[in-house]
Amino acid sequence: MKICNLTFDEYLNMVESFHGSVAPGMIAGGIMVDVAMSNLPEGEFFDVICETQHCLTDAVQMLTPCTIGNGWLRIVDTGRFALIMYNKYTGEGVRVYIDSEKLHSWSEIRCWFMRERPKHEQDTDLLMSQFREAGQGFCSFTTVRVRDEYVENVKKHASPTSLCPGCGEACMEKEGTLCPACRGEVSLLA
Amino acid sequence: MKICNLTFDEYLNMVESFHGSVAPGMIAGGIMVDVAMSNLPEGEFFDVICETQHCLTDAVQMLTPCTIGNGWLRIVDTGRFALIMYNKYTGEGVRVYIDSEKLHSWSEIRCWFMRERPKHEQDTDLLMSQFREAGQGFCSFTTVRVRDEYVENVKKHASPTSLCPGCGEACMEKEGTLCPACRGEVSLLA
Repeated sequence: MKICNLTFDEYLNMVESFHGSVAPGMIAGGIMVDVAMSNLPEGEFFDVICETQHCLTDAVQMLTPCTIGNGWLRIVDTGRFALIMYNKYTGEGVRVYIDSEKLHSWSEIRCWFMRERPKHEQDTDLLMSQFREAGQGFCSFTTVRVRDEYVENVKKHASPTSLCPGCGEACMEKEGTLCPACRGEVSLLA
Repeated sequence: MKICNLTFDEYLNMVESFHGSVAPGMIAGGIMVDVAMSNLPEGEFFDVICETQHCLTDAVQMLTPCTIGNGWLRIVDTGRFALIMYNKYTGEGVRVYIDSEKLHSWSEIRCWFMRERPKHEQDTDLLMSQFREAGQGFCSFTTVRVRDEYVENVKKHASPTSLCPGCGEACMEKEGTLCPACRGEVSLLA
């Protein structure tokens, strides 16, 4: 099995180095990115939406040019372990998800995914061997089009930048407006 | 100048490979991460909060073990270009920001940061040489403590997982509850 041109073991090494540990969600995530990329036309410029921020986002950042910081990866939390990879100009692409119907063939993947047993009672070796054997076999995808707000050619205006009259730091607000922290909308510090 | 044990040029190569382009925010971000790390005790386990998702998040993901997918990096948007790096068990740490007072010495960094001129009228060579010369000179930091909700030892309960009665996919909701997409709270597809 390969994941986006990497051998399974090469991918595991990459996961360990970037994500810090070989979490099952990173294996599932890598395979899901592979499903998405093998079902999109080559050479297209695509953006990604992850429907969860857990693991999946790191698989996307490792295997594609899309990162949180460059804005080509967005997180829109629907509580589901799914990703949408789409042409950034047309919004057309594929949505990949873990298919609970297909999990009947993969008991340990299902156990992990549905949290059927606590983590310390899961069988990691069996889980890994099922991932190797299953390959893309536990995923499904549908072709989709995302809403216009996620498409590149919708005109965007550069955000204004001004000094917040509260904290004195630059913020992306109109001149004279308090930043969200000084407005009390976001509270970070104890 | 070094950025977290990398030479400036090594860091630029890393930025190009992960982020896709050498954006000024990535240079500023790398230096800010360096400020944070050199003002925290060595060997501590820390988490990071970025107050913006632009660029800064990628600098954190490249230079520290903290990523979006492993949960050690959070984005809490205050519209400000700042990061908080803190001991994940005590919540104590440092908040690093671009100090607009200090920008008076660095005209081109200020021009970029305050968007004084459109991007195509900015002088990239001058900007880069000011970054090299300034080093940490345009940043300030304060010691802070983040709110308990961002601290590790606050008890967390594992989210439940069940099949959404709407789409049939697993979601992090109680049995029988529609996922946020099926509830209509989040709308992704056209």
